[in-house]
Amino acid sequence: MAQRYVRVKTSQGQTYYGLLQITRTIQVLDAPPWLQGQPTDLELEPGSYQLLAPCAPTKIVAVGKNYRDHAAEMGTPVPLEPLLFLKPPTTITAADREIKYPHQSQRVDYEGELALVIGEHCLDCTPAQATTKIWGYTIANDVTARDLQQKDGQWTRGKGFDTFCPLGPWIVRELPPGAKLQTFLNDAAEPVQSASIDLMVFSPEFLVSYISQIMTLLPGDVILTGTPQGVGAMKIGDRIRVEIEGIGHLENTIVPRS
Amino acid sequence: MAQRYVRVKTSQGQTYYGLLQITRTIQVLDAPPWLQGQPTDLELEPGSYQLLAPCAPTKIVAVGKNYRDHAAEMGTPVPLEPLLFLKPPTTITAADREIKYPHQSQRVDYEGELALVIGEHCLDCTPAQATTKIWGYTIANDVTARDLQQKDGQWTRGKGFDTFCPLGPWIVRELPPGAKLQTFLNDAAEPVQSASIDLMVFSPEFLVSYISQIMTLLPGDVILTGTPQGVGAMKIGDRIRVEIEGIGHLENTIVPRS
Repeated sequence: MAQRYVRVKTSQGQTYYGLLQITRTIQVLDAPPWLQGQPTDLELEPGSYQLLAPCAPTKIVAVGKNYRDHAAEMGTPVPLEPLLFLKPPTTITAADREIKYPHQSQRVDYEGELALVIGEHCLDCTPAQATTKIWGYTIANDVTARDLQQKDGQWTRGKGFDTFCPLGPWIVRELPPGAKLQTFLNDAAEPVQSASIDLMVFSPEFLVSYISQIMTLLPGDVILTGTPQGVGAMKIGDRIRVEIEGIGHLENTIVPRS
Repeated sequence: MAQRYVRVKTSQGQTYYGLLQITRTIQVLDAPPWLQGQPTDLELEPGSYQLLAPCAPTKIVAVGKNYRDHAAEMGTPVPLEPLLFLKPPTTITAADREIKYPHQSQRVDYEGELALVIGEHCLDCTPAQATTKIWGYTIANDVTARDLQQKDGQWTRGKGFDTFCPLGPWIVRELPPGAKLQTFLNDAAEPVQSASIDLMVFSPEFLVSYISQIMTLLPGDVILTGTPQGVGAMKIGDRIRVEIEGIGHLENTIVPRS
């Protein structure tokens, strides 16, 4: 199994980056792994920590309509250039935590996505250079209040509520070729989303290059690469699970925002 | 003169929050002032530091069309609710630094704005509670590649280039009633923008309350409150200066992005 890079909070309230062992023991690192964090002597036993989202980005840059079949289901053409938007860092929540359903919306959708984690300062990179700036991969759910997204025109509110970016559970350095992304709602055996990440219109390297010609990407920053066909609504009490081959799965439950 | 709260970098590369004295000496604080930073014995003499933007937000939340006459000049109605968008933290630059004109745009506009600096964790606040969450006020220029903003529909690229959010030069705790905001281009005696901040459609307290019902605001976060009538283009070599009564002025020059 590939090395799994995590970020955890201990029962004493300390936050660490670490390596998740098969035994669920965490080997603590002295810094984020993309900043050359090295293993320390500290190990955390199962039950003494909880997983956080595996990085703490200064920004989350997301891409709309990056799978042809999803653009079609939204009734819009594939953009000629990547269509960017931002989610605030306060949207981030971890695996197995709750997505809070806001009272302002009547329609909250899941959007399973591959997330890229940036490892190095990246400004005006070519796609070839960008390849070396992508430190690893994790799973995201770009939760969207579809009614507010459509009402506002700008997507900031609809995609910006607290807990609207589940991220994790860990980062891996490599993906198998053509890795499949699938999303499952509750106990259904059939996925509601299923596509190879090779079907992206703009590749991870192209996206990182494109974004870096606008804004400097910093270590730990996250790029959400878009969602394939099959987006749909969640209701309070639902469980939503996004799986990506070679990474694992990210599951969250929906609760009311009190 | 009101107390002026700054953030500086010393010639040795250290970053501090501080109080700017009339003599331009900086009295260094041991933490951001909104986190109860207290004066230390350290003073920085003029010439031994440069001003940075006066805070380092985890997010910049901005509001579109929040002055009636600006909505009119853009040919759009005033929104019924605040229209939010985000600028990435990498857009921030300081007073007297350069705005970099990107090659992707043929039309880069200034937008002079009042910026609010959040002092406390703020989630689901009422407008009355929000009043106590606004720690202070500074000046911003919401620089916008107008052609890309209009082409993309989403405003992230057009408003998201590095250096597209000059911020500063300092924070003050209070504003005079009806403070005037004016923007001057190069040496013209007549301002290109001139309006009282009382003409905002949604008040600072209302904006903070509204945003806090979507995303948690954190200490040091920044809200841009919208620009009045008179937005216009800048070209390479121009100087742009935004003034707000009771704060001071924020001046920047335009250079090519190399």
